[in-house]
Amino acid sequence: MNAGDGPLSYLQNSSYQGGTLDVARLAIEEEIETKLEFSSEQTSICIADFGCSTGNNSFPAMHTIIEAIKRKHEFSYLKTLEFYVFFNDVAANDFNTLFRSLPPSRSYGVAAVPGDFHRRLLPPSSLHFAYASWSLHWLTEAPEAAADSGTPAWNGGEIVYTRERKEVCDAYLDQFGKDVVSFLKSRVVEMVDGGLIALLLPGAPAAWDPEKEYTMVSLVEPLRSSLVDMAMQGRVSEAKIDSFNIPYYFPTLRQLMEIIERNPSFTVEKIETINATGNYTFPSIHARIAFFRAAHEGMLAHHFGGEIIDDLFDQYEKKLGASPILKNVENDKTLVILAILKKNIRP
Amino acid sequence: MNAGDGPLSYLQNSSYQGGTLDVARLAIEEEIETKLEFSSEQTSICIADFGCSTGNNSFPAMHTIIEAIKRKHEFSYLKTLEFYVFFNDVAANDFNTLFRSLPPSRSYGVAAVPGDFHRRLLPPSSLHFAYASWSLHWLTEAPEAAADSGTPAWNGGEIVYTRERKEVCDAYLDQFGKDVVSFLKSRVVEMVDGGLIALLLPGAPAAWDPEKEYTMVSLVEPLRSSLVDMAMQGRVSEAKIDSFNIPYYFPTLRQLMEIIERNPSFTVEKIETINATGNYTFPSIHARIAFFRAAHEGMLAHHFGGEIIDDLFDQYEKKLGASPILKNVENDKTLVILAILKKNIRP
Repeated sequence: MNAGDGPLSYLQNSSYQGGTLDVARLAIEEEIETKLEFSSEQTSICIADFGCSTGNNSFPAMHTIIEAIKRKHEFSYLKTLEFYVFFNDVAANDFNTLFRSLPPSRSYGVAAVPGDFHRRLLPPSSLHFAYASWSLHWLTEAPEAAADSGTPAWNGGEIVYTRERKEVCDAYLDQFGKDVVSFLKSRVVEMVDGGLIALLLPGAPAAWDPEKEYTMVSLVEPLRSSLVDMAMQGRVSEAKIDSFNIPYYFPTLRQLMEIIERNPSFTVEKIETINATGNYTFPSIHARIAFFRAAHEGMLAHHFGGEIIDDLFDQYEKKLGASPILKNVENDKTLVILAILKKNIRP
Repeated sequence: MNAGDGPLSYLQNSSYQGGTLDVARLAIEEEIETKLEFSSEQTSICIADFGCSTGNNSFPAMHTIIEAIKRKHEFSYLKTLEFYVFFNDVAANDFNTLFRSLPPSRSYGVAAVPGDFHRRLLPPSSLHFAYASWSLHWLTEAPEAAADSGTPAWNGGEIVYTRERKEVCDAYLDQFGKDVVSFLKSRVVEMVDGGLIALLLPGAPAAWDPEKEYTMVSLVEPLRSSLVDMAMQGRVSEAKIDSFNIPYYFPTLRQLMEIIERNPSFTVEKIETINATGNYTFPSIHARIAFFRAAHEGMLAHHFGGEIIDDLFDQYEKKLGASPILKNVENDKTLVILAILKKNIRP
């Protein structure tokens, strides 16, 4: 994610992600009210956001969760609970910006926890609520089959729908499954019995009409095409394009459900798809590209060199604008999956 | 503290602070071996470094503490303990650099906790060992008396020894006392019974001969004098010099002892002065100035503007070099106070 708070930063361009919280808020509040459990001896409640980036989407989510827990215990002696939020992201994340942007009126203690959330990060039985929004679809690595296929894999989700290169597609799903399993295995140790996990991630719809509609997945192909154009101008090498694979996967609801159920320590309390664009629409094609760029620029610059990025996104914007389907944000059928899990209480 | 890891950074210029750990290491290890206590039900141990800066002096200290705790429990079932380190500093600290410099082979989980350590930062009864090295001498603010005195106070410690402006001196000591009391009051809640605090801070000696010797305190006056020179050249205003007060205080051992004893929840297990220069000597006057600059540049630039800093320190280096006392590092009688406190076990 692009660091800092400048015009190209993830912070300035990720309202879309924030918009999905608006849709999920009621469901999260309801699950906290009806399902969250913890020992009555508890004096402090710990919440972790896995994949917090620079925090602008995290702060409203943490506020929502904390206020819901407070309301639940408003009339009990637990009303004096202290709250602590652990903001997690990779060690290279821009935590300085997160710390500078903390809401001054927040009612919780703060810690940043750097590291890969597919591994253990927090003390055993220390966590009451785990939140991961727009982070679990990132893979720990692009699968080997993508590299071996000789053609860019680009995106597992897309391949599902074009029904081509099944082997690569399966490898992406397999890697996604392993990563989610690792995430849950680490959280089992860290969470208290009766604690909740809320997952929000972009997903692939069961069906959509590529003649009229598109999803987030569809935005990857014009990027590839823009890179091929630049290769023809001799500005990037074809070998570099072939070796570039975007390490994320957009699962279907059914795929995610099946993977979560491999871990018997959790019960799926709720899993549903949200029509993300029902609540938040990009004001312009330019705003959509800015969101896409803020999330992808780092890996593109790392792989192809930073000097091509401005021109690449100029080219990309032209391509999207020239497509009768892609240029119209109302055609976007992207969905977001909300899953709420509860850690089972051991007898 | 200067951010990043460039040639002017605190990271690159604070070996002196690290050197004092070398002298304190044996005492810290011994107190852990003989005094640290915690419940045998414990599965994880939490250590916090209050005032960690960018971490280069913190990492060896955390390693020392963790290895000592491991050795103590080597032959018990507690040998499977997990360790977590909370790195604390002000929210504007450069935690990105700290995260990038974490020792790859470390055996502990990591969290950064931004905020003023004179207030509550961590959950109740969560902390087993608190460490604060070269941080507790920084005041939350320069005392009002310094501003009211009409002359720059510069440094409480210095004023003690020149025996001038007693009112200002008392105000500095009073502020230092209040700040240490606040620090300990917050830690009482956060620490487990039987936990330890190790404090390392620069202190003022009981007596020294200003005709032949100097201490850290003596290095402040040539800075003031350099600023006055620049005021005569019209490059800084005298009013700005008058309103500038360095917010730290170097206590004597006796003063610190008396302040700690105001909190009945702690027992002073050890308090002693260390001859810091016995273990680490600056290789040159230039290295000494780089250390001083890394710690002071931020507040000087904030008050006087960044454009004067290079010339100010050139002038400062000339002044130190021209003084037969100050130019010789062997005349440095700076001392460091090591205090180790134990949180009393409630019956």
